[in-house]
Amino acid sequence: MSAEEQSNAQIEELTQRTEEVVLGEDGKPLSKKALKKLEKEREKAARKAETAARVAQEQAANEGPDVSAGKYGKLPMNQSQERTGRHREDITKINAPRAGETILFRARIQTSRAKSSKLCFFVFRQGVSTIQGILTTDDDKASKQMIKFCSNIPVESIVLVEADIVKAAEDIKSCTISDAELMIKQLHIISEAEPRLPFSLEDASRPESEMEKEDAQFSRVALDTRLNNRVLDLRTTTGNAIFKIQSGVCHLFRDFLYKRGFTEIHTPKIIATPSEGGANVFSIKYFNTEAYLAQSPQLYKQMAIAGDFNRVFEIGPVFRAENSNTHRHMTEFVGLDMEMAFEEHYHEVMDVFDEMFVSIFTGLKELFNTELEAVKRQMPFEDFEFLPKSLRLNFADGIAMLREAGVEIGDYDDMSTEQERFLGKLVKEKYHTDFYMLDKFPLAVRPFYTMPDPENPNYSNSYDFFMRGEEILSGAQRIHDAKFLEERCKVHGVDMAHIQPYLDAFKIAAPPHAGGGIGLERVVMLYMGLGNIRRSSMFPRDPKRLEP
Amino acid sequence: MSAEEQSNAQIEELTQRTEEVVLGEDGKPLSKKALKKLEKEREKAARKAETAARVAQEQAANEGPDVSAGKYGKLPMNQSQERTGRHREDITKINAPRAGETILFRARIQTSRAKSSKLCFFVFRQGVSTIQGILTTDDDKASKQMIKFCSNIPVESIVLVEADIVKAAEDIKSCTISDAELMIKQLHIISEAEPRLPFSLEDASRPESEMEKEDAQFSRVALDTRLNNRVLDLRTTTGNAIFKIQSGVCHLFRDFLYKRGFTEIHTPKIIATPSEGGANVFSIKYFNTEAYLAQSPQLYKQMAIAGDFNRVFEIGPVFRAENSNTHRHMTEFVGLDMEMAFEEHYHEVMDVFDEMFVSIFTGLKELFNTELEAVKRQMPFEDFEFLPKSLRLNFADGIAMLREAGVEIGDYDDMSTEQERFLGKLVKEKYHTDFYMLDKFPLAVRPFYTMPDPENPNYSNSYDFFMRGEEILSGAQRIHDAKFLEERCKVHGVDMAHIQPYLDAFKIAAPPHAGGGIGLERVVMLYMGLGNIRRSSMFPRDPKRLEP
Repeated sequence: MSAEEQSNAQIEELTQRTEEVVLGEDGKPLSKKALKKLEKEREKAARKAETAARVAQEQAANEGPDVSAGKYGKLPMNQSQERTGRHREDITKINAPRAGETILFRARIQTSRAKSSKLCFFVFRQGVSTIQGILTTDDDKASKQMIKFCSNIPVESIVLVEADIVKAAEDIKSCTISDAELMIKQLHIISEAEPRLPFSLEDASRPESEMEKEDAQFSRVALDTRLNNRVLDLRTTTGNAIFKIQSGVCHLFRDFLYKRGFTEIHTPKIIATPSEGGANVFSIKYFNTEAYLAQSPQLYKQMAIAGDFNRVFEIGPVFRAENSNTHRHMTEFVGLDMEMAFEEHYHEVMDVFDEMFVSIFTGLKELFNTELEAVKRQMPFEDFEFLPKSLRLNFADGIAMLREAGVEIGDYDDMSTEQERFLGKLVKEKYHTDFYMLDKFPLAVRPFYTMPDPENPNYSNSYDFFMRGEEILSGAQRIHDAKFLEERCKVHGVDMAHIQPYLDAFKIAAPPHAGGGIGLERVVMLYMGLGNIRRSSMFPRDPKRLEP
Repeated sequence: MSAEEQSNAQIEELTQRTEEVVLGEDGKPLSKKALKKLEKEREKAARKAETAARVAQEQAANEGPDVSAGKYGKLPMNQSQERTGRHREDITKINAPRAGETILFRARIQTSRAKSSKLCFFVFRQGVSTIQGILTTDDDKASKQMIKFCSNIPVESIVLVEADIVKAAEDIKSCTISDAELMIKQLHIISEAEPRLPFSLEDASRPESEMEKEDAQFSRVALDTRLNNRVLDLRTTTGNAIFKIQSGVCHLFRDFLYKRGFTEIHTPKIIATPSEGGANVFSIKYFNTEAYLAQSPQLYKQMAIAGDFNRVFEIGPVFRAENSNTHRHMTEFVGLDMEMAFEEHYHEVMDVFDEMFVSIFTGLKELFNTELEAVKRQMPFEDFEFLPKSLRLNFADGIAMLREAGVEIGDYDDMSTEQERFLGKLVKEKYHTDFYMLDKFPLAVRPFYTMPDPENPNYSNSYDFFMRGEEILSGAQRIHDAKFLEERCKVHGVDMAHIQPYLDAFKIAAPPHAGGGIGLERVVMLYMGLGNIRRSSMFPRDPKRLEP
């Protein structure tokens, strides 16, 4: 019986026992006596398995007595048996000056290369950090049996290793720790991977540039394959970095707003009526009635403002039943929403947004440089350019720039995605920024609650923000006057019965306010130019993808 | 035409113009010339309205020329016309030493009391802070016309006030600013409330103790009435405080975890299969197929651990299609979820939880004392008691305590809500804490992915945490071994095809890990003993409530 077989047998036994015991005879749990008996049987089985393992190893190796007996093998499934409290090393803290120390650590086996029956090299990985390990028969450090066993452990398995730190003879370029390596003394399997992986981490981590070489002989891991096996893909340095950065964007967003007196709110995702028009909304069976998934927290965050919260934000899922199969649409994404009352002019709110984005862009550069560089190594992108005070253009200026560049477009036409991108290019050339704000959109292309411009009612007090020419935020001053809001509902054909609680909020008076919603995944995608929003969503949802 | 009527007329006119212009003739926007013409008409109308307002005021008052003309009235709807940048005061910063300063501020009229045609008292409110304002004909400070106009403004309207700060003759007990008051010089309406409110803020803010007096003559505002008119209810000091505290809990939760190397993740709420068993799950029409709403981020956060994120958390909505109409159930609530890999024992994770809760409880006390006291004034509660290191009991100890107190309960029975509460009472008496952790639940009452206890397979490595005797967290060590997990699926009758991507995550090896999910609204409710979870959800959802 191999170590793995034994372990399986143990698990099976445990399962059966668990099952017997829990359901017991006629559904009742076993008596203490019966439990004790089971416990004894268990201990006996464990001892037996242990002996068998040793014998099997010795026999299999057929190399005489095993000097490494007990120093390798598969540990029983960790059921939290004991707390020795023995320190387990974070490998990023290992370096040459610590040579001579004996350490214990848990890591994945990223690769193993047996040079002979007497020598095997390992790369161990914790998160995205790697270190080289050596297992050798020199000085009886390990037996041939141990080397055989260890070199056969499937990659991605998680192991517990005891080793001595030694100074590396020369820089180890293949590992993130390059000045030290580890002489392995003990190696046990904590959690074993299946031998066949959907793809190798090496293939999944190859730089785009290598892939494009004509004589490239390795297999490219397509995005769909990655997403189908997302958990494995997340283990790549790039996968890890992208979601560290995503977490960072949320942290920076909130930190900025908390410091400016914003309150975090949570608004319902299940709503009684398709509040923002009937299109693109998912319907739910809600007990004996029908309900819908919120397409944004828009109306509720405005209600919080009417409830005197003054400045609010929310981070939460947003649902769109849009059958768009593009690089930048998903049916579920994370909205970073904010809304605030202002005193005189909605540009006060744009000022807050401006400062906020600059603080996010700066924070990412400062706090996540390692992660950004990691992504760049695999998928090169130009550093995100932004100004200390963001560029603001009026929609009309944008139209003029497009026309000047030969694009035919009407004054009040909504720009197509392509035109937006082209304008982004023109802006970048002229103003050297990948981020800008486009203000004063035509009223006709905005939702019913948008405040018209006071000077020219063809326009509105509304704005979109762009990163690398793609929209990442949409917002506006909202109509806070109940009567005017009702008028606008009529114009837009909005069924007022559907949004009565929203309209009621303004009947008890609300301050002038404005806000906007940011698409988290778009910000992450565009900051690094990832090219597809699915790369910046951990488990993306689109019309064709519901799994994993 | 009253000022209000004029304003309405202006709005109507603007709407019509907006509409005309936007849709224009044959759907095209108007020419520049036509726009200019409209603009002129608009200015003319505005001038006309202004004159009419003055005349009307003078005539209506019939008190001769109005010395306050132009110092009161209704402002045009704020469409962000100009930015004077003139400072607007935060009333919490007003105090007696600042007497003599002239300030400008925006506030709601909380109450107005006209003592005569020559004197009117106001209470102005910003958020939950209030200050007294006085309008008087003394020294020609205001005209009778102005006093009449201002005293007739519906309460809850938002006004812009210019006033002089004066030292209060005696403490003003009815306001939060008690040492200073304001001599009003100008008062204009920014946003007008309807005269009839669903309930008065005064009624909604009355302490429970007053309500319970036998001769109480005011109307009690029932919870359902509050929730039906949630926006108004949020304006009460208690309503405001509760959600400030809710925001604080999220902030403290995240802050603690960020500092300990956790990554924030966002997992999908739309899922392909009813992953945690088919019961209590909402189904969605998803294009041409059916999908479901996630009952927790459980499986996905475990997948993030298998993807080597080591320590993750998520704050997001959780959906339960449970027809439970109790004080502590909702169909949608906010889950504070965390999951982490551990080295030796799942108690490492409980240690993190322990420290985290202590940090939240302490943080609330330190940072939100004002809010807590505010809630307490209306709805008295005993201070939340907790220990610097939280109490941990085994489930079996809990059962023993219950039995000792005369409760009949089997060793492996799940406790009823009532029994949990009773145990909470016993624990409080014995250990003087409102918070404790109950470890080692019977395996049979926990989900399929729960790791059995290594010593006694009737139990499991799982825990619930309690506040004031009610469960606020459920968690466990999860099974990280793919084969054992499959066995447990079989035992529980879980359809493995439904959770294939989850099972696959363990086939490529995952570290031992544990975690838990906290109900945000429960924590807020129980910290303050609010008695009903709907009080701590801004827009609660239950089987009978989908609005507002």
